[in-house]
Amino acid sequence: MFLQLDARGPQYLQLARALKQAILDGRCAPGSRLPATRALARELDISRNTALAAYALLSEEGLIEGRSGSGCYVAAFVAMPKRTPAAVVQTPARAPALSRRGQRMLTVYDRAIPGRQHRGLRYNLQYGLPMTNPQLAGAWRRALNQAAARVQADYPDPQGLPGLRAQICGYLARRRGISAVPDDVLVVNGTQQAFALAADVLLDAGDGMILEDPHYQGARQVFAARGAMIRTCRVDAAGLVTAELPVDGRVRLAVVTPSHQFPTGAVLSLPRRMQLLDWAQRRHAWLIEDDYDGEFRYGARPLAALKSLDRAGRVIYVGSFSKVIFPALRLGYMVLPASLREAMVAAKWLTDRGSTAIEQAALAHLIGSGAFERHLRRAAIVLRARRSALLGALQRLLGDAIEVADSSAGMHILVWLPHTSHAQAQTLVERARARGVGVYLVAPYCHKLRKRPGLLLGYADLPPADLLAAVRILADCLSQIRSG
Amino acid sequence: MFLQLDARGPQYLQLARALKQAILDGRCAPGSRLPATRALARELDISRNTALAAYALLSEEGLIEGRSGSGCYVAAFVAMPKRTPAAVVQTPARAPALSRRGQRMLTVYDRAIPGRQHRGLRYNLQYGLPMTNPQLAGAWRRALNQAAARVQADYPDPQGLPGLRAQICGYLARRRGISAVPDDVLVVNGTQQAFALAADVLLDAGDGMILEDPHYQGARQVFAARGAMIRTCRVDAAGLVTAELPVDGRVRLAVVTPSHQFPTGAVLSLPRRMQLLDWAQRRHAWLIEDDYDGEFRYGARPLAALKSLDRAGRVIYVGSFSKVIFPALRLGYMVLPASLREAMVAAKWLTDRGSTAIEQAALAHLIGSGAFERHLRRAAIVLRARRSALLGALQRLLGDAIEVADSSAGMHILVWLPHTSHAQAQTLVERARARGVGVYLVAPYCHKLRKRPGLLLGYADLPPADLLAAVRILADCLSQIRSG
Repeated sequence: MFLQLDARGPQYLQLARALKQAILDGRCAPGSRLPATRALARELDISRNTALAAYALLSEEGLIEGRSGSGCYVAAFVAMPKRTPAAVVQTPARAPALSRRGQRMLTVYDRAIPGRQHRGLRYNLQYGLPMTNPQLAGAWRRALNQAAARVQADYPDPQGLPGLRAQICGYLARRRGISAVPDDVLVVNGTQQAFALAADVLLDAGDGMILEDPHYQGARQVFAARGAMIRTCRVDAAGLVTAELPVDGRVRLAVVTPSHQFPTGAVLSLPRRMQLLDWAQRRHAWLIEDDYDGEFRYGARPLAALKSLDRAGRVIYVGSFSKVIFPALRLGYMVLPASLREAMVAAKWLTDRGSTAIEQAALAHLIGSGAFERHLRRAAIVLRARRSALLGALQRLLGDAIEVADSSAGMHILVWLPHTSHAQAQTLVERARARGVGVYLVAPYCHKLRKRPGLLLGYADLPPADLLAAVRILADCLSQIRSG
Repeated sequence: MFLQLDARGPQYLQLARALKQAILDGRCAPGSRLPATRALARELDISRNTALAAYALLSEEGLIEGRSGSGCYVAAFVAMPKRTPAAVVQTPARAPALSRRGQRMLTVYDRAIPGRQHRGLRYNLQYGLPMTNPQLAGAWRRALNQAAARVQADYPDPQGLPGLRAQICGYLARRRGISAVPDDVLVVNGTQQAFALAADVLLDAGDGMILEDPHYQGARQVFAARGAMIRTCRVDAAGLVTAELPVDGRVRLAVVTPSHQFPTGAVLSLPRRMQLLDWAQRRHAWLIEDDYDGEFRYGARPLAALKSLDRAGRVIYVGSFSKVIFPALRLGYMVLPASLREAMVAAKWLTDRGSTAIEQAALAHLIGSGAFERHLRRAAIVLRARRSALLGALQRLLGDAIEVADSSAGMHILVWLPHTSHAQAQTLVERARARGVGVYLVAPYCHKLRKRPGLLLGYADLPPADLLAAVRILADCLSQIRSG
């Protein structure tokens, strides 16, 4: 009898697993006699006690039956699955095995996770990697350690730790002009879960919704997976062109980035903010305000959030700590209109019972101690210097080859390449990657392909010297492409 | 002008928020003149600089316009929402604002979270509260602290930390007889998320599925919220009555608890396991094996998981650490058939991008160091003593009034009350609660109401003396009710 032991865990368990597999595969037929333990031990070069223990285990599980004096036999009933014709035993093809939603999820996933292959680059200008701050990391570790000692063993509040929700309210009042009470806040596992919960609670398959064009593709993917009929609305230098918002059809919600449009960086003007709120009110539509890095703005003071203007309770405000602390911290929050609070909490509770309590407690401490906002102030200074360095290098080394779309966004710059074709831009990205520089096309974020290609350049985690070196390589690649 | 400051954050921000609210409410009409800063400061008893700073902020936001020498005026365009008739401004009634799924979520939520009101009881025999173990808590804190220092700042792998997945495979091989490789494992935020992801990927609204009766209500709620057509299948002393599994209609999946049925504690016999696998294969149905506390069994050695018998790739195995470490740790895992792996990972990625990396790393360390399995061995001894104490007290003090349904489950005992009506049982629960004892009816877990009421008695976190005291009070309440 051929038995393959898998070298995991105690030897008698390895042998029991291998025997079980042989029995279930039919290699040991139902009712057939198993080798004597002494013979098996010799064959496999193991101790007889090991073989005896494995047989005892299989016997306890009922797979084999020992008959005193005449050895062990495979139990008769394990033959049952054999009655199934071989054709049916095949794992069914993927598609029919999944729900329609499951199939949609698989479809959007196949085109997803950009930049994952870019790990290990020398200079990765990927959007979404926040500034590393060792002081913050230290404060975080201390807060986490304290929290681990204090947190109750009980199930967490699905809406989020009350102490964290209170700290979030204080922070939003101080920094984003939002008046909220802890009961308005739902703690979630990052922006992505906020979108997913909103999609569950607000959208049926086939319902219409609005995305800005261009937009954050993570939003499109989750809503597309829910079967939303996505329409897009144009963006110009003053943000979403609210005059073009649809007034026909059933539109349940719009996802907007008023603080600075993602990825163009445009700030939605105040008149348009009022128009947007008015539209939502008239159409009974919800507005999901993704304030993705509303903290960081250069030049003017950050505008207050759209939520702060919302008198009719149409705005769902979404904030995240992943992009300002570190991405592995999967915590964010929603500020909800009163009419949606209970349903959203229900959705969160049904989805995962609540976010991790220890990290919530640590975050509450980090905000309450002032360490979080100290980091924000420090980060704003550092990011401003990095942004200047990147802008300076781009202008000096790429000059007329680029057009900077924006200069006020927090962690990235979008540049258009007016004299470059889409194919050339693709080559540029590939050549730069080959030389250790990660830059990213804006095309995946666009619904309609723009005439000109664009590049998204994240600068948050690279010091000025690295940004300069990266732009040098980029310029070199571009001049080769344009002359070649 | 009446302005209410909210005492949160710097005073100038409080004033700016209050003024903004007055403007948006229409109390300060568009185009109207605001009070002079000096007059306002006097009225509110604040410094003039505070008033100036608030006006400057509102001016930057475009809500007010300063005219040199003639004071500040409310911007004209903020009037726009006023054009909407008052009737439309009302927040719409709840139901139409939500998706069908959102409405279903709200419906199941309203009946949910049993036991939440029982917090603060002297003796809470609630199922699901695991044994407190200070040694484990210490090991966990150390592991967490180390993990926080090591974890990468990057976005986590949505499938779960490879190191944790490898540790889970080793653990499953040693303790549950399952041969899995790390790529089969998906790390999730507890059992609840495993159900939610499976519902997303496998079920469309209207699809049929099977639950055992009785069953864990958290499973019913999440599938019901997804619009599943739930059918139930009877349970007897040998577990799920597989002969009664439906052979008609489109049944996509069954949720089963073979290790010990929840809440009756029955162990699914091996012939029935084979029948169940055969049924799933023939019907192209998925089996979700909820191995909710498969670790703990008294008497015989724990049976290997159903998953270990699954040759056709129909079983989705679900395990959780919340019930064996502490509930606030929201980590669990699924062992997936190869044909479902990609879709489930996509669903997890779309839902929240992946579970918290630091706690995953800490858990990997806890398993790898052996501390987790030391805890399991220790807990098994402690739980056995507690179970004996509870069984002994029940038999001594309640005697013929009860019938113990099971004596091998890990963290709770189910007792039937053969001589008690459902109404009396309800009174029993209330009176016991009034005297500080939390006990729980089995009815919410049942699809069909049983003739006799039953009580679910969780014993994991109560020492023998407390269990005895609780049973004494329970017996006292019951005798009052039966004599009254």
